[in-house]
This record gives sequence, C-alpha cells and structure tokens, in this order.
Amino acid sequence: MRVGELSKRSGVPIPTIKYYLREGLLPPGAATAANQADYGDGHLRRLLLVRALIDVGGVSVAGARDVVAALAAHADDPLELLGAAQSAIAPRHRPDRETPDWQAARKRVLALIVEHSWLIHPESPEIDLVTDALAAGGLLGVTELFDNLDRYADSAESVAAAEVGAVLARPDPASRMELVVLGTIFGEALFSALRLLAHQHESARQLGFTNKPEITQ
Amino acid sequence: MRVGELSKRSGVPIPTIKYYLREGLLPPGAATAANQADYGDGHLRRLLLVRALIDVGGVSVAGARDVVAALAAHADDPLELLGAAQSAIAPRHRPDRETPDWQAARKRVLALIVEHSWLIHPESPEIDLVTDALAAGGLLGVTELFDNLDRYADSAESVAAAEVGAVLARPDPASRMELVVLGTIFGEALFSALRLLAHQHESARQLGFTNKPEITQ
Repeated sequence: MRVGELSKRSGVPIPTIKYYLREGLLPPGAATAANQADYGDGHLRRLLLVRALIDVGGVSVAGARDVVAALAAHADDPLELLGAAQSAIAPRHRPDRETPDWQAARKRVLALIVEHSWLIHPESPEIDLVTDALAAGGLLGVTELFDNLDRYADSAESVAAAEVGAVLARPDPASRMELVVLGTIFGEALFSALRLLAHQHESARQLGFTNKPEITQ
Repeated sequence: MRVGELSKRSGVPIPTIKYYLREGLLPPGAATAANQADYGDGHLRRLLLVRALIDVGGVSVAGARDVVAALAAHADDPLELLGAAQSAIAPRHRPDRETPDWQAARKRVLALIVEHSWLIHPESPEIDLVTDALAAGGLLGVTELFDNLDRYADSAESVAAAEVGAVLARPDPASRMELVVLGTIFGEALFSALRLLAHQHESARQLGFTNKPEITQ
C-alpha cells in the first residue's frame, strides 16, 4: 500500500509516519519510484504498536524505539526483551541509594519477599525499584500509605499470576515474548487507569455516598 | 541555610538546585547579599519532593512543576489537585477514540463497573483511560491478557481502598490533599515495581522452579 493508505488504515497522519521513518521506529517501505514506496501489513502492525506504546503505554518516542528494536533483534532472548519493556516504563533516574533510610526500606522489602515466599533472585534489580518507592514515601512523610504493604504485594501477585499464565499459554517462544513485552506495558496502563477509577469509587463509598450513578451501557 | 548546605542535606547537586530555581520548581531563597540567598526547611522539603517525583514517580520536570504548583495554589481544591497528580502519571497523548473497537471496549468497561457496583460518575474521564488500555490490547492481538478483567479490577479496588482509607484518616483537608497527590504518584510507583517483582516469582512458580533462593535480610 502507499503511504496515504497506510495513514488511512492506521489513523496516523502522514507527517507523523514520515517522522517515525526518519527516527527508525518504522522500517522503510520497498521503493517503487523516485519518491514512492510500498508498505505492507507488517508496517501497519508496527505503526499500530508504536502508537499504542506512546498513546496508551505513556512510553517516550525513544522508549518506543527501544521496545520495537528489542522485539526485532532479540525475539529469542527473554532477558533482553524483558529489560527493554521494563526500562520503557521505569523512571529514567534513580534516587540516592546510599542513605540509612533507603537501606532500612530495602530490609523491609526483603522481609516482604520472605513472608510471601516469593521466588526472587536476591540480586534482582526490581528489589531496588520497590525500595525506591518505599523510601520516597518515608522521606516525604507519607509512610502510612505503605503501612499495608501486604495488600500491595497480594494485588501485584494476583495480577502477575494472570499475566504470566497468559504468556505461558502461548505455544511458541517468539509469540510468548511478544506478549511479555506488550503485557508488561499495557497491563501497567490498564491497572493504573483502573486504580484511578477505583479511587473514585472508594472515596464515594468510604464517605458514605451510596447513591449509585446511572450507568447506561 | 546556604545553597551548599541545602545541597548537602538533600543530596541534590548545586547546579541542579540552580536549574530547579530557574525553572520555578523551587521558590527563591531570601537574599542575604548580592550573590547569596538563605534557604529554609521548606526549601529542603520541596527539593526532596521534586527529586522523588522525578526519580521515583517517573514524572517529567514539567510534570513535577505542575504538581508542586498545584499543591501550593490549590490546597483547598481537591479536584484541581487530583487532576494535577493524575495528569502527571497519565500518558500525554490519547489514541483514536472514534473507532468501533474502542466503543466496544468502552461498553466492556461500563459492564465491569456495573458488575463491581462501583460508584462512578458516567462522565468520568478515567473510564476512557481504562478503555484506551483495553482497546490497545485488542488492536495488537493480545486480548487474552485482559480476559480476566475482574482480577485487575479486584486488585485495583483493594489497593485503592487502603489508599483512600489512609487519606481519610488524616485530620485536616490540606494534609489529606497532600497525601492524595503523593499517594497517587508513589502508590503507582510502588505497585508497578512490585508487579515486576511478582512477574519473576510467578514465572518461576508456574514453570515449576520451586527452589527458593537464599535471601539474607
């Protein structure tokens, strides 16, 4: 298909498509004339993926490029792929981890892992990410938010169990890994939006507003 | 205190502090001489907040400025504050919402709200955010990820109940609102990191690796 058709079918404006081509988020089409190229269904699918990463996953253009590059280059390397997905949604900076408060928070995370009998490698970098969030709450005087760490852990475990189950139900490794990458990013977006919605419900419920608004389906 | 002391106590380098002053993330200190200013504990706390928003919350510099501006200007306006916190963690773009698939996904979200008896205003913008994530999964062929929407909703409700409970336990409105803003951002960071950790545990468990690694606390 021509670029106009690609734009129409994807809903992405032509100048944006040209920008993605220049930035390497989309591979070039097959040249058919001096100023013309032909695009296939693979281009359409890639374009939809890039847009969803940016619009729904909240990933930056650079992050989206990393994710699609990893999907193309490391379809057989689970760790590379997972790293690309995780770094696309994780903060780019890291806080000071040398403080006694941070070390104390890390001990609390390790205790949580032991209590929940989680099978986690002791050097796992995600332990430090959890600690970052916990330590930030302490630094800013909002520790009561994390009094109930078990509840966060139980909820994370429940969501993760469903996600990992869906991945393992896929028959072939390449398709599994695609689901790991997309599931990491879009599962996060889904939970995040549902949590904001649930805040609204819980505020109304805990404040005693029990008149249900009319939802017309 | 002088800027050197502020840097030492916060762990933030002096050039970064000067950048935040120029960008309006930190109010100016009290001028004590031509090239000197005095900073108070309010500056230190603000600086720790800005760093945590950026380093742990994954918020951009512009987003952090919006959050601190909202905290300063709208301490008495819950909706303004909540909007600032939510827009700091939500994607900046929005996908095409005019497609039949998106409308079908929205119906599924409304049905979920009704089934869970959630008290949600039918015009709530978070309904559209949840729909964005659900529709993206459909577009990219990873719908099985969201077969179990109830599990996401139950987990979100459990986390939100604890967070709203902590907010309502605070005695005064200004302090409540601060917890709403910080809780929205840091609660998200905590859950997100715990979910990545739980993926590791669930992968090991569902693949039958039950040898627990030694965690030394």
